[in-house]
Amino acid sequence: MISSPLPSWNDTPRKRAILDFVAAVTDEQNPNHVPPQDRIATFDNDGTLWCEKPGYIQLFFAIARLKEMATADPNLQKRSAYKAAVEGNMAYFASLYPDNVKGLIEIIYDTHAGMSQDEFEQQAQEFLSTARHPRYEVPFQELTYQPMKELVDYLHEHDFKVFIASAGGMSFVRTVSEEIYNIPRERVIGSNITFETVMTEGGPLLMRQPGLVEPLDDGVGKPVNIELHIGRKPILAFGNANGDLHMLWLAETNHFLSLSLLLHHDDSDREYAYDQGCEKVMELARDRDWQVVSMKADFKTIFYFEE
Amino acid sequence: MISSPLPSWNDTPRKRAILDFVAAVTDEQNPNHVPPQDRIATFDNDGTLWCEKPGYIQLFFAIARLKEMATADPNLQKRSAYKAAVEGNMAYFASLYPDNVKGLIEIIYDTHAGMSQDEFEQQAQEFLSTARHPRYEVPFQELTYQPMKELVDYLHEHDFKVFIASAGGMSFVRTVSEEIYNIPRERVIGSNITFETVMTEGGPLLMRQPGLVEPLDDGVGKPVNIELHIGRKPILAFGNANGDLHMLWLAETNHFLSLSLLLHHDDSDREYAYDQGCEKVMELARDRDWQVVSMKADFKTIFYFEE
Repeated sequence: MISSPLPSWNDTPRKRAILDFVAAVTDEQNPNHVPPQDRIATFDNDGTLWCEKPGYIQLFFAIARLKEMATADPNLQKRSAYKAAVEGNMAYFASLYPDNVKGLIEIIYDTHAGMSQDEFEQQAQEFLSTARHPRYEVPFQELTYQPMKELVDYLHEHDFKVFIASAGGMSFVRTVSEEIYNIPRERVIGSNITFETVMTEGGPLLMRQPGLVEPLDDGVGKPVNIELHIGRKPILAFGNANGDLHMLWLAETNHFLSLSLLLHHDDSDREYAYDQGCEKVMELARDRDWQVVSMKADFKTIFYFEE
Repeated sequence: MISSPLPSWNDTPRKRAILDFVAAVTDEQNPNHVPPQDRIATFDNDGTLWCEKPGYIQLFFAIARLKEMATADPNLQKRSAYKAAVEGNMAYFASLYPDNVKGLIEIIYDTHAGMSQDEFEQQAQEFLSTARHPRYEVPFQELTYQPMKELVDYLHEHDFKVFIASAGGMSFVRTVSEEIYNIPRERVIGSNITFETVMTEGGPLLMRQPGLVEPLDDGVGKPVNIELHIGRKPILAFGNANGDLHMLWLAETNHFLSLSLLLHHDDSDREYAYDQGCEKVMELARDRDWQVVSMKADFKTIFYFEE
């Protein structure tokens, strides 16, 4: 017996739109058939593949790192970000954007730079597998949406190449992408701080340095980074926020049938309900007839631990 | 009957080193076994996968474009680069590096920027499939080395992920990489001019703008771009020039058995013989016991059209 696809999705028009799209582009007899090399899918990460509330997971990571550093060297607590981290003062961090971007970037540099790439990846992996989400109390890397993981698997089974295009840190997500999404590291696109090759007696060593690689992988930067990393436009794009608007529209500009999907966070019982930061893309989704997926109506299960 | 692998290679210690390496890393019983996700191979392009003499193929492309533009608009011939292109004055272009880098970058911007990504790719593909090499008189895209193509195929058959890490233009190589090497576009890394997302009524449009993406994919820039695009170190790296030195050494810094190979151009009868631009990497190859592949001794056939 073959199990029916996407079991954590309710049988709604959105699920049927996905199944119909995949059926069309993979059927060689269909005029909308797309050859496998062009079956590119791009997914945003924060709020699309995993939970982004009550704050970005990477922000929790940065705060945990600040706290560790300030515990090891109490002198650092003279600086307000370290003090707030030690005191668990989340309001301080919430207040940084957009009023103190300089302060935010300082935190990123302090916690993401000044070390080798290997050291950073160890810290990120350790955090994601052990630190726990304040509400769900499971390790952060388990906050992936079950229906979205099923969709990624379903696309893989149909010879899609599935990429993540995250506004968050590329290296941060890569440390767990194979384990939690079955998406290989080279298919994770994201924002980056600057890398530098330092020559040592043992050969080249990759160091992370203060500085951001432009453009960040958000908004107009997503099509740019998709071109740099893939060299093809997606035929399926899935996002949840204004920063995904350009990527979702990009899928419509290729020569093939395309599907643009927007995840709407409308389930405060099982997850969170919010429209802030999604206003523009919601409006465009209505104008352009994109599929707006309701977590409340379309997701039978959101997290594995509900089951 | 199974054909023997790498038929265009002579049966020399270099060929045996390659076969032994692949046998070891793919054998699950071998202590040097490498899981498929870590079987990353990186190849330089100019002078490693295709011919780079009497000049880089991309330089011939730039000159052809200058000539086309100066023919359409004779006013442009007041500028020396356009005049040299119309007159076929190759010495002018040879004199630019390293004494007139500004002039060289101007040529790159004039021929590679100020248009959409789609337009550029059409121009590059048209050139590579129709313009002919001055000595061999075949379209430039046919100047691939037969033994290297066989090696790429052989690695693919053994579940390697094969990437190109070219100092040349990423988009330029991608237009033909699938056709000539069977390497998908997303596995081509190279140097880039700046991309910009321009919003139009029809959605986002990718424009190529004057400006270079740092670091260029050469020398210390290769490990950086390999990290950005792959997120893993290669276990096999193949280059031919000083700009490949850091990439070849990078392969030795991973946790696995590795193989660094250097192609030596020593066959003036069938191809070209030169050491200029390869001095440092030849010395390091000797110091570190890398495999130096001799085109004269190790390649039974160089180009398909010899056969």
